[in-house]
Formats: sequence, C-alpha cells, structure tokens
Amino acid sequence: MEVTNRVEPGTNVVIVKNLYVSIDPYQVNRMKSFSSSQSATKNAVGVNPGEGIDAHGVGKVVASGNTEFEKGDLIVGLISWGDYTVVKPGVLLRKFDPLGLPLSYQVGILGFSGLTAYAGLFDICKPKKGEKVFVSAASGSVGNLVGQYAKLFGCYVVGSAGNNEKVALLKEKLGFDDAFNYKEETDLKATLKRYFPDGIDIYFDNVGAEMLDAAVANMKAFGRVAACGVISEYTDVRKRAAPNMLDVVYKRIKIEGFLVVDYMNVYQDFLRTTCDHLRNGEIQALEDISNGVESIPSAFAGLFCGDNIGKKIVQIAQE
Amino acid sequence: MEVTNRVEPGTNVVIVKNLYVSIDPYQVNRMKSFSSSQSATKNAVGVNPGEGIDAHGVGKVVASGNTEFEKGDLIVGLISWGDYTVVKPGVLLRKFDPLGLPLSYQVGILGFSGLTAYAGLFDICKPKKGEKVFVSAASGSVGNLVGQYAKLFGCYVVGSAGNNEKVALLKEKLGFDDAFNYKEETDLKATLKRYFPDGIDIYFDNVGAEMLDAAVANMKAFGRVAACGVISEYTDVRKRAAPNMLDVVYKRIKIEGFLVVDYMNVYQDFLRTTCDHLRNGEIQALEDISNGVESIPSAFAGLFCGDNIGKKIVQIAQE
Repeated sequence: MEVTNRVEPGTNVVIVKNLYVSIDPYQVNRMKSFSSSQSATKNAVGVNPGEGIDAHGVGKVVASGNTEFEKGDLIVGLISWGDYTVVKPGVLLRKFDPLGLPLSYQVGILGFSGLTAYAGLFDICKPKKGEKVFVSAASGSVGNLVGQYAKLFGCYVVGSAGNNEKVALLKEKLGFDDAFNYKEETDLKATLKRYFPDGIDIYFDNVGAEMLDAAVANMKAFGRVAACGVISEYTDVRKRAAPNMLDVVYKRIKIEGFLVVDYMNVYQDFLRTTCDHLRNGEIQALEDISNGVESIPSAFAGLFCGDNIGKKIVQIAQE
Repeated sequence: MEVTNRVEPGTNVVIVKNLYVSIDPYQVNRMKSFSSSQSATKNAVGVNPGEGIDAHGVGKVVASGNTEFEKGDLIVGLISWGDYTVVKPGVLLRKFDPLGLPLSYQVGILGFSGLTAYAGLFDICKPKKGEKVFVSAASGSVGNLVGQYAKLFGCYVVGSAGNNEKVALLKEKLGFDDAFNYKEETDLKATLKRYFPDGIDIYFDNVGAEMLDAAVANMKAFGRVAACGVISEYTDVRKRAAPNMLDVVYKRIKIEGFLVVDYMNVYQDFLRTTCDHLRNGEIQALEDISNGVESIPSAFAGLFCGDNIGKKIVQIAQE
C-alpha cells in the first residue's frame, strides 16, 4: 500500500505509518460487556465487535493536515492494530525524540509500562530504604521495572513468575534478591512466609486473587499494596479471593488502586531518571518483540498464558 | 468488700474502684487462638481461659502507692471486668477532669470510640464538603459518631443498621440524611445504588464481608474506605467476601485499615472539638448502659447480635 500526502490542510487529520504497538492485558477489559466492567472502564472506552482496536504505539507521520505534525515526524500515541492509522483531531498524539534509544522503548520502559511501575512504586507505596518488596508477575512489563526501581532505591526485592526461565532471569539478569515459580507452590501463604520470614512492607500486585490474599497475610504493620492489575481475575472472576480484613485492620494495611493516566505530571521526572539509569546500565529494558501485524492477536492472547517475558510489543514495520 | 489504704508507698500499685467499663467487639479477637488472629492482634494481648479480662474503663482511686495518684482521683485506663482493679506499674492509667460531663463519656464519645470515629473519618478518609459518605453499623459506638461528624463537616450521610428502631433513630435523632435496615435488603449492591445513585465517596466500614463488596461496587473514582472493623467476620470467617479488585484498580479506590492507638497525638484536638460540639448541642452521645458487673458477659455477647444501640457500657458502681 502506497500512502502519499493526500490529507487536506486544515482538516487536522494525521496519517501515521505504524511501527511498534504495545500489547497490554487491560485491553481485555475493554472487550467485556458485563456491567461492573462497563462502569469500571470509563477511562478506557469499550471495544465492540467489528470496530477497530486502538492501542499505545509508535509511528511515523506520512501525511498531515495538522500544522503541529509534518511528514517524517516520529510520534507516540493511540494507533490502530493495523499497518496505518488515520489519527483524527482530539486523539492523543505527541512527537518525541528517541534520545538515541530504540524506538520500541517508547511503548515499554519509557512509556506507560515504565511510568506505571515508577508511579505505583514511588507514589502509592512510598518505599523506604531497606524495606521488603514483593512483586507478582515480576517478569511482566510492569513487574520487572518495579523490581529494578526498588533495587536501585535500596529495597530487598522478591518476585514471583510462572516458569523457571523467568525466575532465573529475575535473579541473574535483573538483580532481584530472590524469585520463585508460583506454579510450583501449593500454599502461597507458606511460600511468602519462607521468602519474607519477617514480613512484607510493600506488595506490588499485578495479579490479584489468591496471591493478594497470601501477601496480605504476610504483611508487616503499615504495609502497602499497590493494586496495579489483577490479570488472574480478568479472564476468570471465580478466582477472586478475599484478603483477611482483620489483617488489614490490625496491621493498618493500605490497599490502593491506581491508573497511570493520573501520573502524567511526573512523566518528565520519570523519563529523565529512567534514561539516566539506562545510559548507566543500571536498569535493563526487558522486551519481548514479535514481528508483523498478523502476530498481534496471538501476542495479545499469549499475555493471559504468561507467554511473554517482559514488555510484549509487536513490531509492525521498519522505520 | 471494704478496701482501705493498704498499699505500701513506693510500690507504685494503685487500687481503683471500677465505675464504668467499655464493652467492645475487638475483645473477641483477643479470645481467639487461631494463628491469623494471633499475629493480627499483637496490639491487644491475648486473653486466656482462667485469666482476668481487662478493658478500657473509668474508676476512682481508693488506695495508691504511686505518687502520681491519690485517693479520690478519677482515672481512665485499663481496668478489670470486676468491682476493683489492682493497677500495677506500667499499665495505662491517667487522671481526668470530667469537665462537667457524665463520667461514662470517657469510655465512649470522649474515649476510644470517639477518637476512632474522628481519626478514621478525618485522617483516613479526608472528606471534602458535599461528599457522599456511607457508614455501616451506623448506630454502633463508632458508626453513630462518624455519621454525626461527617454531617457537621458538610457531607451527605447514609447509614445502615440492623433494625427499624435504629434506622429511625439515625434519621430522626442523629441527623443522618438517610438510613436503611440491611436485614430487609436482599441485594446490597442494588440497595446502595438506590441510596447513592451517583456513587459513594467514602465508606466507613465497621462490618466487612458482603457490605464491603457492595460498597466497593458502588464507589466513585478516588473513593476511600476506612477499614475500622469487620464485626460480621469476627465470629464467622465464612462471611468474608472479596471486593472486586478490578473496581479497586479502575476507580483508584483506597482501602486502609487503622487502629485508634496510632492517633493519640490528635487526642487533645479531638477532645476540644467534641466537647464544644456537645456543649453546643451539635452532637449527641448515644449510650447504651447496663448495670452491675454481672451484666458484663451478656452485654459483650449482645454486641454480636446487634443488641446495643450506641456505645455499650456497663456501670459497675456509683461514684
């Protein structure tokens, strides 16, 4: 397909060649129609059968009727699951400077995944040096960065993941103090007691369900839980498990949900800090990149089986 | 029984004639032996069969070997479920000035019940004028005060209680905007939707279980839950219900447990404010007083059946 500058000036429409698209679990909530999800997902407009799906991604402007963008600009914003995006006025889109780093970083470590980890850890959990941090889905897009930030900050960090390859990577490549394969454990409360004999100060929750229950049971007084996502419950509400509220009361535990969209005010801070860490080799970008627009559906479905290691991204085209 | 000044000076022992004793649900957690409760109740030493039970109460010093107290002093502190208390050194005890108010207020509205309501509402929930507040166990010792403080602060307040007499009292005597009998409702999510068509900003949770689940389902974005107690779960862990963590994430809900012992630094503030409200007739002290030490066991057991209306107190003796 050849795309030329066929956009009328003043229409404000921008045509983007899609390069990288972010593959995120939350999209499944946009596809549901049950009422709780409807009300809960006001922040992410529903996706209906037959409609195109949009997602955070990186692209290059090939035609523009908007004076803010010109052909050749690299942009990050809402693009479609497809080869090109016709971006209408009002849709989130911004130019960026890759700063010498791979373009894919814009949808992972320097994008919403990174900002989610950064804001959730520092703003919601307010760590202190030496505190004990537990991260679930620790080799996922957000979890791996939570662990790396927490280590750099001076915390003791243990992660859980779903296979031994991921566990080895957390310990050997990403510097986690320890990690375990939750699929090999039969009693998560006992497991966490083994890894945190003196209790957990901070639990960064990406999975919900039984792991949340087990973490609350093992928390110290004044423990904090950042409720970032509940991937195990997205596709099976029967997995919900009730944390013991008696523990929440007596141990003064705080469980707080958050969304990255509320933290755009710390984006510049986050970007500067993270770029510095990347340049100094203090933080690793853990990416899992598939190729071609046709790989998007399987990449998306694979999130719910734990197929990905790190941030799942599909590269749609070369720059 | 005659008690005279038989305490040797310098022993620091104080003998107190017990006047009023506070009857509190949390004591049941001190009587349990299962492991979760053991770890959870580090702040309240366990009670073992055969041992005396201590509780917050008001008394009068009849003999003192401690230079800080003398015969005739009114004191508030940990006293025994009995006629007299031998207070050993190191046990919480302080003299107080009743300020012209009933002595019983010291264990209710001007004691830990009042401070719990005050700290939980203002410090944990941080209300804004006009916000919508839901309180469960709203005719209980803490709940009735949460509602009254919230109304005085300028919030819209709805309470739940377990019979129609309590519901009428909340609306007619305590100034709640609305109230309902939860025992007459079959679908608490639908009930709360009816009372809060635009959602709940603050839920002050005294009961846990299904009501917590229903409140979370009906909360607005950035809603706050003060987890004060979970009386429905104290005696039946099967009642635990899991709030939908998807709601917690997407609506950025904060659920926070707290204990009144952490708020002694605001006690003077609280006392001044509450005494002013009492003198101006802006707040009512809702007390449910039984007489005689022999009424303590039934008063305590009655808490778990909802027998009490307001703060449950036993008057052990006349001053």
